[in-house]
Amino acid sequence: VIDMDILIAGFGVVGRGVAEVLASKGPMLGSKLGEDFRIVGVFDSRSVAFSSDGLDPLELLERKSSTGMVGLDRHGGETTALVRNSEHDVLIEVTPTDIALGEPGLSHIRCSLEAGRDVVTCNKGPLALRFKELSDLAERKGGRLRFEGAVGGAMPVINVARDILMGEEITKIRGILNGTCNFILSRMGEEGLPLNQALKEAQQLGFAEADPTYDIDGIDSACKVAILANAIMGMDVSLNDVQVTGIRGISEDAISLAAGQRKVIRLIGEISEERLEVSPRLVPIGHPLSIGGTLNLVQMKTDIAGEITVAGRGAGKMETTSAVLSDLVALVKEL
Amino acid sequence: VIDMDILIAGFGVVGRGVAEVLASKGPMLGSKLGEDFRIVGVFDSRSVAFSSDGLDPLELLERKSSTGMVGLDRHGGETTALVRNSEHDVLIEVTPTDIALGEPGLSHIRCSLEAGRDVVTCNKGPLALRFKELSDLAERKGGRLRFEGAVGGAMPVINVARDILMGEEITKIRGILNGTCNFILSRMGEEGLPLNQALKEAQQLGFAEADPTYDIDGIDSACKVAILANAIMGMDVSLNDVQVTGIRGISEDAISLAAGQRKVIRLIGEISEERLEVSPRLVPIGHPLSIGGTLNLVQMKTDIAGEITVAGRGAGKMETTSAVLSDLVALVKEL
Repeated sequence: VIDMDILIAGFGVVGRGVAEVLASKGPMLGSKLGEDFRIVGVFDSRSVAFSSDGLDPLELLERKSSTGMVGLDRHGGETTALVRNSEHDVLIEVTPTDIALGEPGLSHIRCSLEAGRDVVTCNKGPLALRFKELSDLAERKGGRLRFEGAVGGAMPVINVARDILMGEEITKIRGILNGTCNFILSRMGEEGLPLNQALKEAQQLGFAEADPTYDIDGIDSACKVAILANAIMGMDVSLNDVQVTGIRGISEDAISLAAGQRKVIRLIGEISEERLEVSPRLVPIGHPLSIGGTLNLVQMKTDIAGEITVAGRGAGKMETTSAVLSDLVALVKEL
Repeated sequence: VIDMDILIAGFGVVGRGVAEVLASKGPMLGSKLGEDFRIVGVFDSRSVAFSSDGLDPLELLERKSSTGMVGLDRHGGETTALVRNSEHDVLIEVTPTDIALGEPGLSHIRCSLEAGRDVVTCNKGPLALRFKELSDLAERKGGRLRFEGAVGGAMPVINVARDILMGEEITKIRGILNGTCNFILSRMGEEGLPLNQALKEAQQLGFAEADPTYDIDGIDSACKVAILANAIMGMDVSLNDVQVTGIRGISEDAISLAAGQRKVIRLIGEISEERLEVSPRLVPIGHPLSIGGTLNLVQMKTDIAGEITVAGRGAGKMETTSAVLSDLVALVKEL
């Protein structure tokens, strides 16, 4: 049994989820894989803890919840230096997403890859902005970059495309990439609600933020389109290359007109040679893309298998944690 | 670059598909994986060809199509001896399915595993009848047994569960496992057709056999339930342990009653601690299991990720071939 030494950058919702899963499943997975997962460092926005002997994940969770800080030591804000000075095999980068500059995640990821160390992240910003730079850096330095959690939470689209469909050529991707929009459109269709009311319901249920711009204007979906285009279709694009129309303009009339033709309206992201786009589309009832609720769903068109669909919960603490976990397992299996 | 030496048992639709894909994609995959795929033997019900230097897949296809036989030499019907006497790394077992005894596939698979050689198959019979025996044999002798194509053609359920969800505990599986039934039920719902007419349409379109018993009485779905229960949930069950109700009893009235509640009727296979069952069920429109057409779809309930759904075309030459290919790639990657 060897060790996989983990540095966790960020101890918000997902960082804590990772610690919980390593506490509850680490030993079982370790014996299955012949590898022990060990947390050798962790930091949040104010504090840091390192130990080459391994940190107890339950102790970290306890300290965070009682003091608001994951470590006993405060740092001065120079978190990239913390990554640089850490001896880890894999960085789990789960700091908050920023889609303007991608920081601080972008610098953390760069720094770890620069040292030839692996990275697992669910941070959309750095990937939607600088995918090519980061994947080239990984290749050049021999580190590996995995990011299943950055697209659609628990929906295993990246790993299915990369590992399972490795023999296939994927020529087109279409998907429902934002659970908030899909919930709103589903409720408008089922109950004849106007958009504002369906949005309010989504906010009350915790499916939408107080400021829903990022979701309902299609920006979140566009980030995921950019990541999928780069990661699965080998393109070199960024968020700004994606044509985006959100769902603000969808009226009750449009929805009921669609229903009369046995169709629903869904916010669809599409990636193909011709298109890089997020827009509302008509989908026939019974089609995989007509799915309701908060799920995310991606359909990949391949040369041999035809269309392959994967779906799962698109957001949530344990859903995103599960994606991080599957990346960790994949890294170990490929060693 | 090393070689992966392949023996193909059966040269029907899927066997020919495998030869076609090895001809068109073999070299590209070989250089990607650092391994050359080489066909060292192949047989059909009457003839056989061996060559330790490798057989040309295009030549095999040409001979089969012009003479009806894949090899130049006739064999006496003792095909298990052909497997025994072959020096291969992996057996691709694609002879016709028999769900009473599982032969001749069962003997071919046993014989190859007995010699510690890997097996890739899409043959439901042996797996639905003798899963535990075969997987124990594989483990004891150090061969590997993969069978993505045995459940739902191109739908990558087995490999997603085994490889990508390795860190998860899967506690329940529900799925649409037969494209013929799903097409019939979809058409009944969309057009108000009676079952007999929807069945006739399916037969005309090539989605149903002249004798549709195996499909519409739920036997095909039950085979897949047994395989999924063994392969994904670690059970030790066979086809006969599955409670089966087919779709013969579904009336137009039942379908329109369901539609009045915004529901559809689907033939659902379910595997859980409590149930091993195939039966028609009511599913709300918009739910992943309400999918229409000939697709297969499986939903797995996991402890961390929640529900993960995968779907793909359930049958067809290239769809099943794609599953065989993904198994071959997985074997190479795990070496």
